[in-house]
Amino acid sequence: MERRFEVDLQALRERLLTMGGLAEAMIHKSIKALVDRDDALVQAVLAHEEEMDLLCIEIDDRCFTLLALQQPMASDLRFLVAAIKINSDLERIADQAVSIALRAQTLMSQPQVKPLIDIPRMATLAQEMVRKSLDAFVRRDPNLARSVIEADDQVDSFRDQVFRELLTYMMADTSTIPRALNLILLSRNLERIGDHATNIAEDVIYIVRGEDVRERGDKELRKGLRRS
Amino acid sequence: MERRFEVDLQALRERLLTMGGLAEAMIHKSIKALVDRDDALVQAVLAHEEEMDLLCIEIDDRCFTLLALQQPMASDLRFLVAAIKINSDLERIADQAVSIALRAQTLMSQPQVKPLIDIPRMATLAQEMVRKSLDAFVRRDPNLARSVIEADDQVDSFRDQVFRELLTYMMADTSTIPRALNLILLSRNLERIGDHATNIAEDVIYIVRGEDVRERGDKELRKGLRRS
Repeated sequence: MERRFEVDLQALRERLLTMGGLAEAMIHKSIKALVDRDDALVQAVLAHEEEMDLLCIEIDDRCFTLLALQQPMASDLRFLVAAIKINSDLERIADQAVSIALRAQTLMSQPQVKPLIDIPRMATLAQEMVRKSLDAFVRRDPNLARSVIEADDQVDSFRDQVFRELLTYMMADTSTIPRALNLILLSRNLERIGDHATNIAEDVIYIVRGEDVRERGDKELRKGLRRS
Repeated sequence: MERRFEVDLQALRERLLTMGGLAEAMIHKSIKALVDRDDALVQAVLAHEEEMDLLCIEIDDRCFTLLALQQPMASDLRFLVAAIKINSDLERIADQAVSIALRAQTLMSQPQVKPLIDIPRMATLAQEMVRKSLDAFVRRDPNLARSVIEADDQVDSFRDQVFRELLTYMMADTSTIPRALNLILLSRNLERIGDHATNIAEDVIYIVRGEDVRERGDKELRKGLRRS
């Protein structure tokens, strides 16, 4: 029984990683769709969505079954509770990537407002946060998790920079307003991806340390991002 | 033991309701702060935030303890898994209310772009969705939960209407752009509150029916909102 439980936990861990890899791919493709103005990539992101939803339901079921049948104690229970939350955050990251892909589709039919520089950088950072949060989860590495939480500051800076710059374009030429607005909202999608990666990182710290980081300063860091 | 477990579950239910009531109050005050240009209400929302965070940690602890010590089966387990998710959604609703309050604070120092009509209506709707999702939770009422999921369409319409109208103002007078942008982003905060209420409603259906509504059409409804 014990051995079987370990095998099931390992399978759950691997499915979460598969889901994380898919979420990363969706972020990457949605931004590449924007930069390359490539509708095939938009379609690829949309096609991944269903796969993602099925994975999410499968993982929820696995967690529920393990909770029901194994009645795990202490650290395994903490792992399973975190897995339920991480699953939900990964699904929402995928939702944000879909939103980005749809914005990219709208934007690619119109002239560019300006060369895209900060948004792709912001996307790379957000994607890295997702990957690192899952690496931290697999390695049970609280320091790596903490670095994800800290990276939220940079996401914040990008968000503000994108906002300021696009505001300037809008003020100077009203014809850019709809497109610039779409880019601003797209940067908020990236920001939310960073928020979700931060949530995952907090769950990792919760698993490893068995304490709730939300009681301490990390909460403040996270709040700053989620608010915007 | 059995009786004690029932008492503990009831206490958990009541704490979630307290949290829901607080979340509702925060939405109400943040929008009243905007409409009445009242900084005291902004401060009230900020003061609620800490209370909310403590409640969230307390409820997480209660859920964890009940899972660990009682090893509940079937429907109680489903209830506890849902409670963990609902707790997280309520906390994020409060975060959105804080964000709205901070935007209200920025906006109240500047002249109004236009009389506020749709945003207060949208807020009332979002607040109702939160209340109904929690009523559905207490009464285990899947029909009420479904009405919350359906109300998301109206939130969508408000979001689009607010967007279109403010876009017109921005195009006509560039001096309104920063303020109009803030109002657009504020409407997105309200939209996210609607998303979270929808998540709660889905969890209620999951508890009551023991099946996952996400596999069916509701998912599509929810997606449409979360994307934007």
